[in-house]
Amino acid sequence: MIIDCHGHYTTAPKALQVWRDAQIAALKDPARAAAQGTVSITDDEIRESLEGAQLKFQRERGSDVTIFSPRASAMAHHIGDATTSLHWSQHCNDLIHRVCTLYPDNFVGVCQLPQSPGVPPATCIGELRRCVDELGFIGCNLNPDPSGGHWTAPPLTDRSWYPLYEAMVELDVPAMVHVSSSCNANFHATGAHYINADTTAFMQFLTADLFKDLPALRFIIPHGGGAVPYHWGRYRGLAQDLKRPPLGELIRDNVFFDTCVYHQAGIDLLLKIVPADNILFGSEMVGAVRGIDPETGHYFDDTKRYIDKAALNDQDRRKIFEENARKVYPRINRKLTVGAAARGY
Amino acid sequence: MIIDCHGHYTTAPKALQVWRDAQIAALKDPARAAAQGTVSITDDEIRESLEGAQLKFQRERGSDVTIFSPRASAMAHHIGDATTSLHWSQHCNDLIHRVCTLYPDNFVGVCQLPQSPGVPPATCIGELRRCVDELGFIGCNLNPDPSGGHWTAPPLTDRSWYPLYEAMVELDVPAMVHVSSSCNANFHATGAHYINADTTAFMQFLTADLFKDLPALRFIIPHGGGAVPYHWGRYRGLAQDLKRPPLGELIRDNVFFDTCVYHQAGIDLLLKIVPADNILFGSEMVGAVRGIDPETGHYFDDTKRYIDKAALNDQDRRKIFEENARKVYPRINRKLTVGAAARGY
Repeated sequence: MIIDCHGHYTTAPKALQVWRDAQIAALKDPARAAAQGTVSITDDEIRESLEGAQLKFQRERGSDVTIFSPRASAMAHHIGDATTSLHWSQHCNDLIHRVCTLYPDNFVGVCQLPQSPGVPPATCIGELRRCVDELGFIGCNLNPDPSGGHWTAPPLTDRSWYPLYEAMVELDVPAMVHVSSSCNANFHATGAHYINADTTAFMQFLTADLFKDLPALRFIIPHGGGAVPYHWGRYRGLAQDLKRPPLGELIRDNVFFDTCVYHQAGIDLLLKIVPADNILFGSEMVGAVRGIDPETGHYFDDTKRYIDKAALNDQDRRKIFEENARKVYPRINRKLTVGAAARGY
Repeated sequence: MIIDCHGHYTTAPKALQVWRDAQIAALKDPARAAAQGTVSITDDEIRESLEGAQLKFQRERGSDVTIFSPRASAMAHHIGDATTSLHWSQHCNDLIHRVCTLYPDNFVGVCQLPQSPGVPPATCIGELRRCVDELGFIGCNLNPDPSGGHWTAPPLTDRSWYPLYEAMVELDVPAMVHVSSSCNANFHATGAHYINADTTAFMQFLTADLFKDLPALRFIIPHGGGAVPYHWGRYRGLAQDLKRPPLGELIRDNVFFDTCVYHQAGIDLLLKIVPADNILFGSEMVGAVRGIDPETGHYFDDTKRYIDKAALNDQDRRKIFEENARKVYPRINRKLTVGAAARGY
């Protein structure tokens, strides 16, 4: 089985964005109370949004299940307040739940959290519990910069995050560290802000004792770990100079990288440098880069092809394609078993 | 000849920091006018600060000349105002000039600019001209985030930077894009802020027509280009999606990466992916990572060893070690010729 740990619902039916646009417009009118309202999308619209995109690519590329979450760039936690983010997150998460219910063999849910700048992360616990306990989700996306490129929140190792982390540990769900869009003109969202956030989070983890405090806490750093594998020597050297544990020890049970690196040489470096136990297959399709690489004739984000071509033994390949996802997102095991049983496999 | 394009005076005699500490302390007393004052350092103190460090490493590792600039993490443009930065930059640059005068075979100067948050970059032109015209410097370090981790300045492609760029073009000097220390708790300086700035600058260049406007403008993106070579496929794909020129064309005459990547696999990727014409040898010694790699028994930042071991033909090796530095920093040619002639070579 091949589990893609990194997919967003970037192709959601237009009604979702129409609702969001109306919500944002209403923020300008202080007389209007924030309203949850409804998003009217039919099952057929959901099917249509996926059949020609994520489902088609799963079939064509040969992956089985996608760990699926709301569109990351649309989370935009910097807009409005905590209620704004809660209403928006609930709609986005409910829609992911409908996707997973319609296609239980193809998608397993991960939730968007209703973060808001300056608001304690503990306020997100309710929505996390709802998504895990009621909707059957298996993880969350955690935004280390709810301000959208101004980086006004404390580092991920700050104790203000701990109540949320304790809930994650209790529920046995990991978080993918994933920023959203940037409202800072310096940072292109998918070309700079995403990658910078990955690098930033890793260095925060390196310099603090977060995983001593919470040994069962697990993070996936997407986009191949940002700049980290390329600069692995720098990070090994910094860890040594700072008298921190060796990187292998630091990340072993707590920090994992996905394979969203869109060329063979990058994937080869990742697989060579990072222990196979800490790599999860991911593609982010349909996501940041949508074109076909003229050098290969294949989609840039068809990351399975790079891994197929890489020098990997069968055991490591199985870990990366399946076993590590089952280890890091353990709730997926029950989903896949129940799904298979229900369909008589 | 082997030219190291990236060295900072991290070992400057203590009197420099004593002056800076007093300057910062004086900022708290609004009754005291900002004063340039003097920094008392003897030639022997300068020699002592270099003989056991940069000069020793040049000899041991086999590099000849270092393009040398003030300590990057100490620029701290976010402290005080433009006058604060001017006084501090002048002292730092004057000290680099003394180093280059004492050791004309070993060091060629690059200046710190007196940037300050919210102040137009054009205010730096005077100090740039002084350093180039009077002190014989061959380039400058340009901080894309004078706020020190809050990223409040416009992107490097904004027209507010153009007057400074026009002066660079007129003087025929490039800039290394180099942030300073971070006063944002999210960003470890050398582990996150430096690398993020490199990635950020590249994406800014990718999305604008800066080099159409100023075809002779040249930037060095240090630390191996941040995350860029590792994510080369992502950037190629983004350029294609955004209908921008192919990366090779975009960077050809304008954007160059150094080799401050502290492990063999990272250097191998850089050399494989980025055209040899766009790579300059650099080590950043004595800099961010000071230890010895227990896996190799050699200093992490002894980047010459990695390049020596890499699969490179002689022509590309010469470009990376010498010819590209002469091309990107053309004023170095006169310095090296004059220096050699003066010493009867």
